[in-house]
Formats: sequence, C-alpha cells, structure tokens
Amino acid sequence: MTSLNDLPLREDLRGRRPYGAPQLDVPVRLNTNENPYPPSPQLVKALGEAVADVAAALNRYPDRDAVALRADLAEFLNRDTPGADLTAERVWAANGSNEIIQQILQAFGGPGRRALGFEPSYSMHPIITHVSGTEWINAQRDEDFGLDPERAVAAIAEHRPDVVFLTSPNNPTGTALPLEALEAVLSAAPGMVVVDEAYGEFRREDTLSALELLPEHPRLIVTRTMSKAFAMAGARLGYLAADPAVIEALLLVRLPYHLSSVTQAVARTALTYAEELLGTVDTLRAERDLIVGWLRSQGLRVADSDANFVLFGAFPDRRRVWQAVLDQGVLIREVGPPEWLRVSVGTPEEMAAFRSALTTALKENQ
Amino acid sequence: MTSLNDLPLREDLRGRRPYGAPQLDVPVRLNTNENPYPPSPQLVKALGEAVADVAAALNRYPDRDAVALRADLAEFLNRDTPGADLTAERVWAANGSNEIIQQILQAFGGPGRRALGFEPSYSMHPIITHVSGTEWINAQRDEDFGLDPERAVAAIAEHRPDVVFLTSPNNPTGTALPLEALEAVLSAAPGMVVVDEAYGEFRREDTLSALELLPEHPRLIVTRTMSKAFAMAGARLGYLAADPAVIEALLLVRLPYHLSSVTQAVARTALTYAEELLGTVDTLRAERDLIVGWLRSQGLRVADSDANFVLFGAFPDRRRVWQAVLDQGVLIREVGPPEWLRVSVGTPEEMAAFRSALTTALKENQ
Repeated sequence: MTSLNDLPLREDLRGRRPYGAPQLDVPVRLNTNENPYPPSPQLVKALGEAVADVAAALNRYPDRDAVALRADLAEFLNRDTPGADLTAERVWAANGSNEIIQQILQAFGGPGRRALGFEPSYSMHPIITHVSGTEWINAQRDEDFGLDPERAVAAIAEHRPDVVFLTSPNNPTGTALPLEALEAVLSAAPGMVVVDEAYGEFRREDTLSALELLPEHPRLIVTRTMSKAFAMAGARLGYLAADPAVIEALLLVRLPYHLSSVTQAVARTALTYAEELLGTVDTLRAERDLIVGWLRSQGLRVADSDANFVLFGAFPDRRRVWQAVLDQGVLIREVGPPEWLRVSVGTPEEMAAFRSALTTALKENQ
Repeated sequence: MTSLNDLPLREDLRGRRPYGAPQLDVPVRLNTNENPYPPSPQLVKALGEAVADVAAALNRYPDRDAVALRADLAEFLNRDTPGADLTAERVWAANGSNEIIQQILQAFGGPGRRALGFEPSYSMHPIITHVSGTEWINAQRDEDFGLDPERAVAAIAEHRPDVVFLTSPNNPTGTALPLEALEAVLSAAPGMVVVDEAYGEFRREDTLSALELLPEHPRLIVTRTMSKAFAMAGARLGYLAADPAVIEALLLVRLPYHLSSVTQAVARTALTYAEELLGTVDTLRAERDLIVGWLRSQGLRVADSDANFVLFGAFPDRRRVWQAVLDQGVLIREVGPPEWLRVSVGTPEEMAAFRSALTTALKENQ
C-alpha cells in the first residue's frame, strides 16, 4: 500500500491537511455561512428549463469568455452601486471566488512575489497564495478586528507586497472597512489590491462598497460571489469587477473553457431572479442583529457584523463549547482567533435551536 | 486608459497571448475535436430534471469530495478496462481535464521542479505547467509522432523531470502509444507520470489503455474527460484514475467545493446514458478511417489516428490552406508541427463539406 509519504509531493505541502469545514449530517448547519433559504419552486423550475435548453448543445464547448453572463453580472452590480458603471469588459467570472482568487495570484503573484493579508481573515487567501508559489505575509488587524489606515500603510511600506487582500465585510469577524481605509491601502500599495466582498450584500446601510472606488483605481479588484446573499452556494459562481486591463491579465492564466455552459445558464437564470434571491437579505440582517444582541445579553463578547454570521467569545476552551453545541445537533464553526467561535445566521427556527444549544453548552462548561 | 503594460503582471507572462482556438460562427466547425452528435431529447430532458432536483438545495454547498460522482466514474472506467478495478478512492474529478492537470502540477510540480513532455502534443500541458511555476522541458517525439522507448528513457535520464506527460492517443497527431513505451517511461521516471487519455475511447481495437498499468504503478495518473467521446464538452468534466495516495495529494491543492452540485448532477446523469453517448464512437471511428484514406488518396501525408481527428500535411504555407478552407465555411485547426493542419471528425455531411472545401483550397494553392 502506497502512502502519501512515498509520493514525490512538493516539499512545502508535506504534513498539510486538506482545507475544509466538517461536512456533517446534523439538523442545523450554521457553519459555512450559507443562506438558509432555498430557491423558490418557480426558480427551481426555471433552472431546470434553462439547463435543458443548453443541454441540447452540450456536445459543444461553452463560450470561453462567458460574455453574456459577464454582461448580466455587470448590470447586477450597477444596481448595487450605480457609480461603478460596469460593463462585461470590467467583469470576470469563475467557478467560485476561490478560482477568482487563484487566477489573480497566478497573474500577479507567483514565485518570487508576495501577497499580504490582515488576519484574522478568510483562511483560503493564504492557502491559495501558498499553492500558487507566492509568499504569504501575515499582517494583523486591530484588536477590534478593524484596520487602522496608518498601521495598514506601515505594513505595506514594510513588506512591499505584490498583492494585498482586504476582506470587507471580513470573514470570520464580520467587520466592514470604511472607504478611507481602502483608499489608504490603495495609495500605499505598490501592486494589486483585492477587496473580497463575498458578504458585500449584507453590509449595513451606511457601509459603502469598494466598487465605488473602481473608476479611480486600475489596480483595485473587487470580488463577489453568488454563494452567500445570492443563495447559490451549490452553483459555484464567483466574480470580480476591475479595470479591463486586469481582465486581460487573467485571460493569460485562466484555464480555457473554465466555466461550463450549464454554470453559465444557471447563473444567468438566477440573476433574473435577483429580487427573489436577495429578498432574504433584510430578513437575515435583522436576524443577525437579534443574535448579536442576544449573545451580548449572555455576557459574551461579540464582534460587530456587516455579514451573515457572528463571531463571539471568548472561550478558554472553545473546542468544548463547539462540541457541546454540536452534541445538540447544531453545527457552528471553530475558526478565527483562538478563543472565538462563528455562527452563521440561519432561519428564526435555526437560531432558536442555536440559542438553546449554546445556553446548555455554556451551563455545562461553567 | 490603463493598459496591460501598466499593471504589475508577472514578468514571465508579459507578451503572452491568451490560449484559444478562434470561436468563429461558421457552418462547419471541425477545430476543437468536439463530438458532432448532440445528446438525445431523452437525455436533454433527464438533464433538466436532474438539475431541477439539485436546484431545490442550491443554497447549500455541494459535496466537497464529489464521492457519488467519483464512484460512478470508477464504475464507468471498469467497463472500459475491467482489470483496472477502480473505486471512488482511486478516481478524482474536476472542471475539465485542464483543472485536473493544474491540480497535478500544483501538488507535484511548482517552483524549482520541472515537467517534461514529448512534442508535438497538447499545448495546454506546457501552458499550465508554466502558470504553476514549474519549468517545462520540451522533448521530442519521433519523426512519425511515435515515441521510441529508448529515446524516451534517455530524455528522462537527462532531465530527471518531476512530472512526465504522455498523451495517448496524442493530440494533435492522433498517435497512440503501446504499453511498452509507457512501461519504459514509468520505469525510468523519478516522479509522477501522467498519461493523458482525453481521446482514449476512440482508440483502435488492439490499442490498450494505460489504465491496465495502474495496479502496478502508484506514480501513474491516467486522465480522461467527458468532453470528447462522451459528447459533453459543454459540461466541463475531467477526471483521473490513480493510486488513492495521489488523490490524497490532490486534496491538499484543490479549491474547496470546486465542482458544483449542478456539474455533479449533470455528469452523473450523463453517465447513466453512457451507452447512448458512446454509441457515436464507432461511427466516428469509421468516419475517421474514411477521411484518412481520402486524404492519402489526394497525395497528402496523414498521421495514423486513434482519435477523433486527423493531422495532415505538409503545406509550406498552411495558413493559406486553413484560410481557404475557412472561406468556404469550414473551420479546421492550425496546430501542431508547422506544415500540418488538424481536422476533427464530424458527421458524414460535415466531412463531405470538408472534402469539398479542401479540394477547392488545394486547387487554389497549387
């Protein structure tokens, strides 16, 4: 029997573990920030029909550049942020925002280059950076998970990264960055600046999107996904908005025909149901604010959240709390700073189950 | 206006052009080795229904490890090559075999490592190698596009590559390799050996698949695709068979949730229609042998083909022949050795159009 150690694996991968939250079959899953509301029967039917439509020509390759889908995504983003003034030439799509991030690193990172992020943040940024052969620089967010512009600029001046990652709202803390912080980073960064807005649609009313800054900043890339607010995690569609020259760069590294005809059809159909799909955002925001309030009322520390999840703590032994909650059928996430846990915002029923499970868990762990 | 030159692109990408055959809207497309036969109305209906089924839970992430699909693919390969004795643990799937190849290079190649291929061969091997930060060694096939085992072993001894690519049947020449050549390479290679069998199902009766060698060779990876014989180019599903330890290695570099629920459902449904889809293979093989005979009867040089395309020449100015054929509505491919052209095998009507267009083109170019 051959083991992984017998194979000529890249040395820097030895001893690593595959990324991934446990996919456990439990009644209440609040661990991967999915939207708890499934598509309506109308949308389900429309998706089946859209796929049957393209299936008749499935022996042919898809449109390699996914132009129609990119135009639809541009139109969608223009509704979110009218000033962005986007077109298909300024939008790019891939199989999840993980693939978007990988393409960015393949074009602008690579051997001899480095990417910098402010942690705690999305753990795939350093992982994809590493696999792309790019060096990862781990800078730190402030104590309250925000990002003081002066400290951010100092970190950039020190490390001169080729790519900077900013996540806003940040995962796993929920913290949104003000445009002033983004602008400070953009002024200081010698290379590309990626603002990961996977949770952008959940931001609070007075929080602005980095899309506002695109017209003035050709080295800015704003990434989005249909997995979260858009409730399409199973469809795997990530996208970005940037200067057309950035898209030209990505064309040099993208795998040809990376987006299937089926994925393109599913995403375009879902976009025509944007109102239905985003109709859950206000509900989830309200539920989020409730759970923040409840957690604080239990005497816990809770990070302000502009996302569809909440980071709370601090637990000297978070593993025990996580396990005790899981024992009651509620799966949350052990992620982020060592003493904190993250819970995704689910339906009112799911959040009631979470409150009950956590109450019991905290009693047991007193 | 920003140009690509103003951006901090990786230095080694500067001046490169995006990969891709022209996607032109012409009556007869014989340039990307697609299967010309679309799925039946029954299969189209089944695909629509399968997607509607999974769409009801599209707000949730897909099975990250695509276990059910991998089991189905293993069963399918066991019908092709019973001795391979495959299971889900020995099969891996991704968005097209391009992504499979990329994952292999990310795990076993990377900075400081090198991959070797015997050219002319599939042009994405060096491109993906390069983007992964791996050095590409361009060894040569024999004059007749075969691979003499002794010369292959000498090239490997000289360069000590971490990854060797063998394409069989080879693209763009159509040449299949005998198992003896593969075994010689496997014995000599210090690292991984990838046999790209994208066109494996089209091989002639007495040509064996590299799957036969899997039980004895833990460093062998055999890649396949549903894009060609399987007539599912638009679905983007590539896969591989290998030792379970190889799959463990790929789990360290794969992007989590890389395969959508929709892609998994489409591929699994298509596999239940394998008989229908592969029913076109014999027709295409017969049509291939006819076109080989006809091209030779025109006094042209033609490479023996175990695939669904034919390489022919030699034209001192192949561009002119390609353009003259295109002017008559038939798109073929300018690829491979400088004086040769490649035509995919289409329907009898498409091949009649090709013969007519080439006849005219050759007269014009006399």
